[in-house]
Amino acid sequence: MLKGLDERTASIYTPIQLDLGRVEARLRGLSQTDDSPYLGPLLDHVLTSGGKRIRPAITLLAADFYPHQPENPITMAAAVELLHVATLIHDDTVDNSDLRRGKATVSNAWGRNVAVLFGDYVFATSATFVCETGNVRVIRRFSETIMDLASGELIELFSAFDAKQARKLYDERIYRKTASLFCTAAETGAILGGAPEPQTQALRAYGFNIGMAFQIMDDLLDVQGDAAELGKPVGSDLRQGVLTLPAIMLMKRYPADNPIEKLFRELSEDRDQDGQVPKVLDMINDSTIIKDCYTVIRQYCETASRSLDELPDCQARHSLLDLSGYLRERTH
Amino acid sequence: MLKGLDERTASIYTPIQLDLGRVEARLRGLSQTDDSPYLGPLLDHVLTSGGKRIRPAITLLAADFYPHQPENPITMAAAVELLHVATLIHDDTVDNSDLRRGKATVSNAWGRNVAVLFGDYVFATSATFVCETGNVRVIRRFSETIMDLASGELIELFSAFDAKQARKLYDERIYRKTASLFCTAAETGAILGGAPEPQTQALRAYGFNIGMAFQIMDDLLDVQGDAAELGKPVGSDLRQGVLTLPAIMLMKRYPADNPIEKLFRELSEDRDQDGQVPKVLDMINDSTIIKDCYTVIRQYCETASRSLDELPDCQARHSLLDLSGYLRERTH
Repeated sequence: MLKGLDERTASIYTPIQLDLGRVEARLRGLSQTDDSPYLGPLLDHVLTSGGKRIRPAITLLAADFYPHQPENPITMAAAVELLHVATLIHDDTVDNSDLRRGKATVSNAWGRNVAVLFGDYVFATSATFVCETGNVRVIRRFSETIMDLASGELIELFSAFDAKQARKLYDERIYRKTASLFCTAAETGAILGGAPEPQTQALRAYGFNIGMAFQIMDDLLDVQGDAAELGKPVGSDLRQGVLTLPAIMLMKRYPADNPIEKLFRELSEDRDQDGQVPKVLDMINDSTIIKDCYTVIRQYCETASRSLDELPDCQARHSLLDLSGYLRERTH
Repeated sequence: MLKGLDERTASIYTPIQLDLGRVEARLRGLSQTDDSPYLGPLLDHVLTSGGKRIRPAITLLAADFYPHQPENPITMAAAVELLHVATLIHDDTVDNSDLRRGKATVSNAWGRNVAVLFGDYVFATSATFVCETGNVRVIRRFSETIMDLASGELIELFSAFDAKQARKLYDERIYRKTASLFCTAAETGAILGGAPEPQTQALRAYGFNIGMAFQIMDDLLDVQGDAAELGKPVGSDLRQGVLTLPAIMLMKRYPADNPIEKLFRELSEDRDQDGQVPKVLDMINDSTIIKDCYTVIRQYCETASRSLDELPDCQARHSLLDLSGYLRERTH
């Protein structure tokens, strides 16, 4: 069993406990490489720093509806986690983040240059894992997902401090940078677990909706969370000029005197001496915006749950339903 | 036909001229994307900056020995070039290079953060191209090659300013960072062109040897080339603490009073005020080292040519033999 999992998560993971242990073993096995003395400590650093392994768990659960050989879903689940880890390494480099899950980021501990190249190495490792499945459809979805993740982050970077972005662009952006991997985690698990096509699409829809809910919750925590619990300063999205759902909702409430536009202008001109960020956070928290965001999250989670209606009733289905309920209550 | 090719290269490319044009069209087609307004100009910048397209040419030539449908080798050749471009984007970011082929690098023109994420995007695009071939063996080799390229660069970074590296480590490093892609370019072309297994291995051996020769020539040009012609300052490897074959040979000549060790110590302590680099370059150029390096290059090229002995006599074979001869005479 994964160390440090809370009781609820552990309960959700019950049907895939053994398989998730094998995913963990494959990941930890990577750092035993004698390929190069430099790679072992780096791999060890990024693969043992905790995390709930939610994406590989979705792959394994999605694979668990029909009789199948466990090897391919396990390999795929490891690939999904490796891809997630690779994106974190590059994202932390781009964002200049010092900490990730309470440990120094690769770019902080080894420098940005190592982080760029090591991220590439982890991307490539994930791709070789997917190749092991021998399933071209799965491999293609995986490559497309890497394109989505990279273009999502690029769009975020290019549109930073632009307060004119619409909700539609936000949805597209969070689909690419987050939901696409949840989608692919579920879809590839379903394919490799032998699900028929309609059920594969249903599980893909589950992944999409859970992924969207997950990112909006992340955005919400950044405007209302506790900095210590979150492991990053509250309001960090706003400070980096990233427009999230709460900020978009705030803009809609003040169409004439757009507080976000004003903040982004001041921040991008580097003259936020009077600390506008806390004021904007207060405006968000003093309104019904938080409640409205939770409504959006609930809707995504409900759609995710409903997409499982036609799937066989089994432990994995209960777990996915339970996960959707749990994500709505996420606090960090 | 590719613009700006010298006569000799154009002659070598004759049997694959049309296919190479289609590779070019696929690459240029990418920047017509309406996927995101940010991606088009970036893709256009990196895909129209010239280059001899030597790696995709090897893929097409390796595919040209047996009757086959041209689509898969063309797609593969485009993927090989995209992978090369992706590594250049990240390498230029890591090396903080301002210029590449006379144009601003992505990290210079758009900033390092865009370069990291855009490089990821190009890596992923190359992988989706390979997936189009539907050939799992080819896809696997491609992923392994990305691991080789990334670990080769990582090893170079980690062993910078270490004057104790042996020739064996150098060989391993240049295989990974350069020859591995030449290897894979030839091998995948052979596979997708329908070559039998022994001929596929022969073409892979050709790619390996040509790739090793190519990198050693690159290293040699850096100690004796003309800065203007080369597009980068002479001695840049030494300045970055990268040990190349000429430097390793110099160390072997002065085992007691190792001039490279002294240089690296001074450079890494940032006290090379008296300009030791030109002195070391002079020591290399005033010895037989240049001649000895050319001997090593010639040996690799001869081995490359010999590996084609058992292949059918055809235009593609003549071109590959001619390419091996041409690389030995490369001046930039």
